[in-house]
Amino acid sequence: MSIIQLNQRQLKIIDIVKANEPITSESIAAHLNVTRATLRSDLAILTMTGILDARPKVGYFYSGVSEINLMSNKIKDKKVEDIMSMPILVKKDMSIYEVIVTMFLADVGSIFIIDDDEFLCGIVSRKDLLKATIGGADINKMPIGMIMTRMPNVVTITKDEDIVLAAKKIIEHEVDSIPVIEYDKHDKTQAKAVGRMSKTNITKLFLELTDN
Amino acid sequence: MSIIQLNQRQLKIIDIVKANEPITSESIAAHLNVTRATLRSDLAILTMTGILDARPKVGYFYSGVSEINLMSNKIKDKKVEDIMSMPILVKKDMSIYEVIVTMFLADVGSIFIIDDDEFLCGIVSRKDLLKATIGGADINKMPIGMIMTRMPNVVTITKDEDIVLAAKKIIEHEVDSIPVIEYDKHDKTQAKAVGRMSKTNITKLFLELTDN
Repeated sequence: MSIIQLNQRQLKIIDIVKANEPITSESIAAHLNVTRATLRSDLAILTMTGILDARPKVGYFYSGVSEINLMSNKIKDKKVEDIMSMPILVKKDMSIYEVIVTMFLADVGSIFIIDDDEFLCGIVSRKDLLKATIGGADINKMPIGMIMTRMPNVVTITKDEDIVLAAKKIIEHEVDSIPVIEYDKHDKTQAKAVGRMSKTNITKLFLELTDN
Repeated sequence: MSIIQLNQRQLKIIDIVKANEPITSESIAAHLNVTRATLRSDLAILTMTGILDARPKVGYFYSGVSEINLMSNKIKDKKVEDIMSMPILVKKDMSIYEVIVTMFLADVGSIFIIDDDEFLCGIVSRKDLLKATIGGADINKMPIGMIMTRMPNVVTITKDEDIVLAAKKIIEHEVDSIPVIEYDKHDKTQAKAVGRMSKTNITKLFLELTDN
């Protein structure tokens, strides 16, 4: 997998093909006022990248591949487990106040709630906790289980899924992070939280890929 | 800007060059047990992508370009103003309670605070607000200016900066979002907040670039 920078002439060729497809290499050369030989390597690059299609005795077509949508296979190959963080778990009978303290100590945006068998049963965000504190609840006494978003309403992902799917779930459901779960071997309706996938993980990956 | 998938033979050539540089195309062909003509297009692609360097009468070198670090110029060309969101601004004498309500209504993670001249003077996050509410402050009376992070300690960015720099600032300073500012024409020590750049903006961009 690699990336190449198209040169000005290659970009011009794309525009010419878009406007005139199908078009022969002779015609492209005429448009650019150069020889066919000059264009050979440009056309090779453009067809190898899949940007142009070449059909024998017909000419070149624009494949419609949006260049910005072509993306490193290395990203597509990365799985949730490659970049996820550790989950922060608390029992559902912990008080709201204690959960807030846990959230500050761990410095995370979401806390996952587990039941007595340690299966994931809910999630709370900073927003949920802020709502509870200003809502007048007795946060020292009220258990977190009372205000959490409950399973099966929690958006989750498994660790072998694509990162792109994780990003999509986070954006579509407007959440900061989602639990990475592993289903129980015996009871497929139950799952343990084995990781945490957040906008921070995605932003870090973006930075790693772009910052050189 | 485009991306190509290297084929198995091209990947093998990279390995051979890495291990034997400088190496002539004849020697590479011998390693692979093919003719030089067979390798011509592969070597053209590898040198055009900058992965290999060719020096006349010497041979091919591995350029050391890390493939994953090569990234779309379209990302590098994108500026903060292309993807930023609207800022949510409140006056510094607004009560903490009112700011929390504003935050819920706008559904944002950070609120920017402005002074009487509408210049940016601080920022508060959900975390700051949560800390204030459990800290026993009288959130109905205490002005937000008392608990905000103040300028010049606020991490900011201008709208013509690279998105990669914005992502870097967000990650390095461990914040959810940063104000996009425009300095005052007359007084360069003052700035107005004209946008908001968050992990959500970066995650959406990541999704747009990868999801096809």
